Amino acid sequence: MQQHEIGFLIFPNLTQLDFTGPLQVLSRLPGARTHIAAKSLQPVPTDCGLSLLPNRTLDDCPQFDLLCIPGGFGVVDLINDQATLDFVRRQAAGAKYITSVCVGAFVLGAAGLLRGKRATTHWAYTELLPLVGATHEKARVVRDGDVITAGGVTSGIDFGLVLVSEIAGRQAAETVQLGIEYDPDPPFDAGHPDRAPAPVRASLEERYAKSVQAYRNALVPLAA
Amino acid sequence: MQQHEIGFLIFPNLTQLDFTGPLQVLSRLPGARTHIAAKSLQPVPTDCGLSLLPNRTLDDCPQFDLLCIPGGFGVVDLINDQATLDFVRRQAAGAKYITSVCVGAFVLGAAGLLRGKRATTHWAYTELLPLVGATHEKARVVRDGDVITAGGVTSGIDFGLVLVSEIAGRQAAETVQLGIEYDPDPPFDAGHPDRAPAPVRASLEERYAKSVQAYRNALVPLAA
Repeated sequence: MQQHEIGFLIFPNLTQLDFTGPLQVLSRLPGARTHIAAKSLQPVPTDCGLSLLPNRTLDDCPQFDLLCIPGGFGVVDLINDQATLDFVRRQAAGAKYITSVCVGAFVLGAAGLLRGKRATTHWAYTELLPLVGATHEKARVVRDGDVITAGGVTSGIDFGLVLVSEIAGRQAAETVQLGIEYDPDPPFDAGHPDRAPAPVRASLEERYAKSVQAYRNALVPLAA
Repeated sequence: MQQHEIGFLIFPNLTQLDFTGPLQVLSRLPGARTHIAAKSLQPVPTDCGLSLLPNRTLDDCPQFDLLCIPGGFGVVDLINDQATLDFVRRQAAGAKYITSVCVGAFVLGAAGLLRGKRATTHWAYTELLPLVGATHEKARVVRDGDVITAGGVTSGIDFGLVLVSEIAGRQAAETVQLGIEYDPDPPFDAGHPDRAPAPVRASLEERYAKSVQAYRNALVPLAA
């Protein structure tokens, strides 16, 4: 069976489901070998009180076939982190799929990988995509050549299934989907900013405002 | 703000998304304090090559308001593990919500907590529910009094939102849902056993057969 080297970058203060959703899906891709890379092998704290253990350092990874960068508030600290950006550029140069979930898109962007590309990110941050040279496409999973970006957090599960289908075919993706019983049934229809009640959206926009501004401040010098 | 002690049990060879999905949702419940309990503070290996760090041992937990047991192939090793079952019974006695995702239901069952209850579990294991005295109800999230069980893996996200709504109200749940952009869009309609293509279902039933039998072997003596 063909091996597929599936590599994730993790970092302090990531949103754990940005990573664990696609990890669950992609680890079931036939032939997948998953690599969880971080700056060191120390536990990586997430936004949930849970710490994750990487199994690779940035300097000790094989060439990935698929590179995936999850998001989280911690992304803002990577935008000027040259060791991380060098790793991302190095892996991207040889990878077949260069991907992100949520605001992980801005790590790809800071590494110069979204210039001239259609892309997406968490809904509250889409207006910042032009700062890394990308055009926002309004979709949950956006493909532009070898670059595939997904929207916020849970979109990483849909994204994972799209990738399994792309790499191993529809039946393989359906098998993963049934295995994880992915027949979603949200109790409310509030998961898209166009359909969420206005006060719900407004409260989140207020909560994210500082973070969006911090991203903007970090990204503007790159755009110049 | 009212505090809510949200406690998860983790154990070797759990299906990480059974745990990380509801953790992501429930950690955003206003006032939530999440506890990740295991037999020791050593890293806990999952089914994905990822290890997780608990932050509590079984003997060092406050009384949980909500107890959640995720699933995974490793559950079979807990069915006769008295230290784990004692922990589950002790916490369940004082918890307001006694819950499971996927085959985590059989940990509740082995602890005697599903007797006479309507419940669900991963679709491939539902036929085993009577062995712990439960009746299978065909739904993604099943509530019977203070016992709430969810189906396979990704159902834990829907389950988490149901719980946030129950505890903190609809707007709180909608806010979490929009924050994690939970507007699911699976590329195929194969996530429910009644609708998945027959060969896909058959291939998984074959893959799970040994595990289902191992659960049956472990549960039959309890039923006697």
